[in-house]
Amino acid sequence: MEIKKTHNIGTLGPAMKGQKVVVGGWVEDLRELGKLSFITLRDVTGVSQIVVAGSENLSQVKDLTKQSVVLVTGAVQESKARDFSFEIKAEKIEILSRAVHPLPIDPLGRLESGIDNRLNARALDLRNQKTASIFKIRHHVLLCIRKMLSESGFLEVNTPKIIGSASEGGANLFSLKYFDKQAYLAQSPQLYKEQLTLGLERIFEISSFYRAEKSHTVRHLTEFTSVDIESAFMDYTDVMEILEQLVVSVFDHVEKNCTEDIKNLGIEIKKPQAPFERVTYKQAIEELGKQGLSLAFGDDLLDSHLRTLGEIHPGFYFLTDWPLKLKPFYIHEKEDDPVVSKSFDLQYGYLELSSGGRRLHDPAKIKARLEEQGLDSAQFEDHLKAFDWGMPPHSGWGLGLDRLMAVLTQIDNVREVVLYPRDPERLFP
Amino acid sequence: MEIKKTHNIGTLGPAMKGQKVVVGGWVEDLRELGKLSFITLRDVTGVSQIVVAGSENLSQVKDLTKQSVVLVTGAVQESKARDFSFEIKAEKIEILSRAVHPLPIDPLGRLESGIDNRLNARALDLRNQKTASIFKIRHHVLLCIRKMLSESGFLEVNTPKIIGSASEGGANLFSLKYFDKQAYLAQSPQLYKEQLTLGLERIFEISSFYRAEKSHTVRHLTEFTSVDIESAFMDYTDVMEILEQLVVSVFDHVEKNCTEDIKNLGIEIKKPQAPFERVTYKQAIEELGKQGLSLAFGDDLLDSHLRTLGEIHPGFYFLTDWPLKLKPFYIHEKEDDPVVSKSFDLQYGYLELSSGGRRLHDPAKIKARLEEQGLDSAQFEDHLKAFDWGMPPHSGWGLGLDRLMAVLTQIDNVREVVLYPRDPERLFP
Repeated sequence: MEIKKTHNIGTLGPAMKGQKVVVGGWVEDLRELGKLSFITLRDVTGVSQIVVAGSENLSQVKDLTKQSVVLVTGAVQESKARDFSFEIKAEKIEILSRAVHPLPIDPLGRLESGIDNRLNARALDLRNQKTASIFKIRHHVLLCIRKMLSESGFLEVNTPKIIGSASEGGANLFSLKYFDKQAYLAQSPQLYKEQLTLGLERIFEISSFYRAEKSHTVRHLTEFTSVDIESAFMDYTDVMEILEQLVVSVFDHVEKNCTEDIKNLGIEIKKPQAPFERVTYKQAIEELGKQGLSLAFGDDLLDSHLRTLGEIHPGFYFLTDWPLKLKPFYIHEKEDDPVVSKSFDLQYGYLELSSGGRRLHDPAKIKARLEEQGLDSAQFEDHLKAFDWGMPPHSGWGLGLDRLMAVLTQIDNVREVVLYPRDPERLFP
Repeated sequence: MEIKKTHNIGTLGPAMKGQKVVVGGWVEDLRELGKLSFITLRDVTGVSQIVVAGSENLSQVKDLTKQSVVLVTGAVQESKARDFSFEIKAEKIEILSRAVHPLPIDPLGRLESGIDNRLNARALDLRNQKTASIFKIRHHVLLCIRKMLSESGFLEVNTPKIIGSASEGGANLFSLKYFDKQAYLAQSPQLYKEQLTLGLERIFEISSFYRAEKSHTVRHLTEFTSVDIESAFMDYTDVMEILEQLVVSVFDHVEKNCTEDIKNLGIEIKKPQAPFERVTYKQAIEELGKQGLSLAFGDDLLDSHLRTLGEIHPGFYFLTDWPLKLKPFYIHEKEDDPVVSKSFDLQYGYLELSSGGRRLHDPAKIKARLEEQGLDSAQFEDHLKAFDWGMPPHSGWGLGLDRLMAVLTQIDNVREVVLYPRDPERLFP
């Protein structure tokens, strides 16, 4: 059985008239018309019409089901069909794989399927051009982020996901048996990336992390992809600038490189302008006060508050200078106002995309903060050691890639932009 | 406290004579010489000499420990020192972070430390230029692999690491409690990447995977980085060609882009020539027979056999066409000799770097193979469903990135090329 194509469909065109090609893909449509049959054949790069004539070929495709996989040898010719500028006149058709009907979902999307049905048949769902476009865009987003950070002098690293002690307080960790020891799945590379600034200065990681949280929202997953950076010799405002440049680059790159996918999704890329608006926590609670939502300094912002702020600031904006006591132990205070922290969240309307800040690099201060927060500094011994080896001042952030993808593609549910999402109810496929 | 540099040391040179700069880094050495002190200051990009004069600056650096972090403001000037073509005359020195002595290891490597001590102080170990160079090279290897695969039409994907059923037989899986369910950590993206060829055709993933194996060798880790590809419409020989091109590209890229790091490691990049030698399993057992190691068709090759073969074939070579019964259930048989499989390992001498092959795409055949191997096809139900939706013929491989890094850097122990390696004994830091 021959299985190899000579061409991707997307590389063909009417200029190649007369050229013999071997193309492969799946049958999107099949119509009989007198002594001819017409196959709409799609591969990941494009779509073409296949003209089938002759008794042998016609009998081959007689019982062919849609979504089956075929290999077609034939010559390119001009097409009179409305939807095609060229077509392929089949000389030989080989059926490589038959789709068994009924299929669980209609990948053409003519019959709409709920997200659960689509996720249960995710591989087939990828034959829906809208779905495929999301993941083609995701590929480009990853490419663009890595390029931009590499060009800014950041080194890509791989930190462990199996960790021996509960970092960042230990809530919502998945635990596992590691031979005769207890281990956990990392929620973030936070402690490792801070340590790594000691010798590598600027590092980034893009990886899956894990949160055992029973959230049932459209923006929480138990396994999510995080983009993390950490940089020595930078303050929080410096890494905020890198973050906004990165977001703008991503929108720009996708707008330029994913024209077809943007069209498939029926969206327009709304490229944001840098600098993004900076709103301090104090300004935010004033704004909320004017809306009748009275908050005192130190109160956390609830979902409802963020929704109101999101209406006031509908695009990307930074929410900065949070009360220190609301922030993790490793966040640095403002030198001139130590109840305030050098911290920020990147918001898109009500949605938090990223969180970051200047980190403490003085181990005495970190120990004091751990105690204040009721955490056992003995649990952080391995981490704290590194701060005695000449730890540079450093700042960083973590960015939720899935949420960024949701904003970029204008899709509400993060499950749409993750191939096989995991939430408290979903562990399959 | 000022923490920002204007320049990385690597960007300075004698041509910048007279220019005022702010540099930051760690004190590699400190010498007093009459009314002057000399600091050897290193950052991740390079090393410079700092000349300290004046009573205030001298008193600042009087008790300065090596490996402490300082920020230096000063002017570039020519240097008379043997090791430096330029130096910086300090106007101001700020001590950002003091290293507390004694340090657990000497990052200059003058006092050699065992690997366990170095891994326990990994962040500090990265100030050893040899260690830093390994991870700068690793960054470049990742960059090069992603570039090459993207340019070959492969889309980067992220598959789940928390999986609901034990794939590939279920041995050596870490298990975890997933709310009220049982889950496992993925050993490979095998089943997902096969499914994804259905709609995306060519995909790759670079991610951490997990194996709960009590191996105590220099080449096994419980958490390892794997590069995986899968492609529709390709046979095993096609993906072998992609793999050898990728390996050659990596060596070539590192040779061209990591000159300084190669020098630090004291190695020469031994760029291999494609095509790599192809040795079939049958040839291999013949070769072993001539060495007095008698094997029958179907016998697995033990470590000792691979070591002998590695002496006969000391560089990169493919070991192909293994007996089908030695291979996982998803591997395709050879059409003209069905006890033989369309499979290969990429070896470097005795070391297996990659394993791959043509996959079965006919669900009936897969079910038969599962039964033959004593596996319960009900456990693979979610996976097998996808094969009824028009599964294209496909092939792929998984490549152990850490092992490739070990070969490239000519280092025996994979722990050296992983920042925070995990093995049955090591879960910290």
